[in-house]
Amino acid sequence: MPRISIEEIEELCEQALPWVALLGFEVEEIGEGACRVRLPPRAEFLRPGGTVSGPALMSLADYGMYVAVLSAIGRVEMAVTTNLTCNFLRRPKPGAVIAHCRLIKLGRRLAYGEVSLYSEGDEDAGPVAHVTATYSIPPERGES
Amino acid sequence: MPRISIEEIEELCEQALPWVALLGFEVEEIGEGACRVRLPPRAEFLRPGGTVSGPALMSLADYGMYVAVLSAIGRVEMAVTTNLTCNFLRRPKPGAVIAHCRLIKLGRRLAYGEVSLYSEGDEDAGPVAHVTATYSIPPERGES
Amino acid sequence: MPRISIEEIEELCEQALPWVALLGFEVEEIGEGACRVRLPPRAEFLRPGGTVSGPALMSLADYGMYVAVLSAIGRVEMAVTTNLTCNFLRRPKPGAVIAHCRLIKLGRRLAYGEVSLYSEGDEDAGPVAHVTATYSIPPERGES
Amino acid sequence: MPRISIEEIEELCEQALPWVALLGFEVEEIGEGACRVRLPPRAEFLRPGGTVSGPALMSLADYGMYVAVLSAIGRVEMAVTTNLTCNFLRRPKPGAVIAHCRLIKLGRRLAYGEVSLYSEGDEDAGPVAHVTATYSIPPERGES
Repeated sequence: MPRISIEEIEELCEQALPWVALLGFEVEEIGEGACRVRLPPRAEFLRPGGTVSGPALMSLADYGMYVAVLSAIGRVEMAVTTNLTCNFLRRPKPGAVIAHCRLIKLGRRLAYGEVSLYSEGDEDAGPVAHVTATYSIPPERGES
Repeated sequence: MPRISIEEIEELCEQALPWVALLGFEVEEIGEGACRVRLPPRAEFLRPGGTVSGPALMSLADYGMYVAVLSAIGRVEMAVTTNLTCNFLRRPKPGAVIAHCRLIKLGRRLAYGEVSLYSEGDEDAGPVAHVTATYSIPPERGES
Repeated sequence: MPRISIEEIEELCEQALPWVALLGFEVEEIGEGACRVRLPPRAEFLRPGGTVSGPALMSLADYGMYVAVLSAIGRVEMAVTTNLTCNFLRRPKPGAVIAHCRLIKLGRRLAYGEVSLYSEGDEDAGPVAHVTATYSIPPERGES
Repeated sequence: MPRISIEEIEELCEQALPWVALLGFEVEEIGEGACRVRLPPRAEFLRPGGTVSGPALMSLADYGMYVAVLSAIGRVEMAVTTNLTCNFLRRPKPGAVIAHCRLIKLGRRLAYGEVSLYSEGDEDAGPVAHVTATYSIPPERGES
């Protein structure tokens, strides 16, 4: 069971994550320590070659990891990325991008996970990028 | 001597990099295989804790590397990131961010470099993030 | 079907990979684009805290990726690592380590994959380390 | 002023770091938060192509970071790597390798730094590999 709902995530984004609101990321599904998020197709995300820009992909992956962490520990807004490594594997199509996120380790102070990103509707071609990331969990999360 | 000017970079951004235009990145200085770029202070880049969001920092670093690569090989728009690794070191202040970028290796097909990011006006506190990235240079760049 | 057998890998190690012979790595299972390799328990691999040293884990992961690449493309000895990222997640027990390796992408010139490492007999505790790596495949591999 | 001497490092290696003793790493110079370490030329470190194996380079870099951390905080044996990212840039010559290590950030609980590796005597060709690494510093280091 996820410890935060899609509605709560959306509310949090509106209130406190203007970056996510700016880019229009969507949460499609949420589990416990896992989620699927989506980058909508937008002209602003394209780059030379008619493909989705790398930073848009990394931003989506970072957001997906944040959602996956909160799905495991509840609404701890102050969780922050300490490391993010992105490998770009294929040229994405100029459309929506789907990110599948899952935690590999959830510790008391650190969460580590991976994200596989796909061009929507072209999942069979394999991931367009693969990300690993570490989040730091603040000690003061208490009994939240 | 850089093989591309700040004016040419800005023109390229307007024509072909809507992402950069959206975020308002600026090139402050350009050398050969090196540059300094800037993230302006904007409410959209903030996140809980009153600090600059990680993806905004990574986007700036990726842009800086792109400019550094073009400063070394000329206007090769199709250069693309293949790997980007970001380590977040300190909480940035809620203001502008400066990125110092330099190539460590420029090969025929790959460029590799590093980016140190600082809160503007607080450089003495040390970098807020450190990035390494690899760019793939398309073979067809010819004699440009 | 793997394009190289465990016996061929072992022969290659004896002839050309003295590093692997020195450390005593073993191939336990080989698939197509996947394998399981093992670090035997040895006093030389321990470090303060009675745990397995990080470089021994990274060496095992790098070897596992090499075997996974050869399992997919055949005996192409000159495949070389271009990037390896290791995240250490838990303190390994002072014994054998098992690495599960799989390719995420196999291109013409690059292979990318991930490796999950476990303390042997303690797999349920979760991975002790997680590695992603890129291998460069030499162009001259011909029709092999 | 370094907080540990070359002699103390060598003593520590003999007593507690059999891996380093096995590989014969040497400390050439030590500063505060910086050092230069050396991989001696040995047949065991070579791999197909007459070059130094990647894991030998990563092991050297990890050792150099350990020495750099101890040079800044004193003999805290239990400092452990949490992330190491290695980018291989050039084929090393089949000889000794020199690693220049420096801390970029030294926090209370984490140290982060970079290592540039060169073929000895061929430094002008540029680094053969570039590593970034994070070390975790145990809280109980007390007044050591």
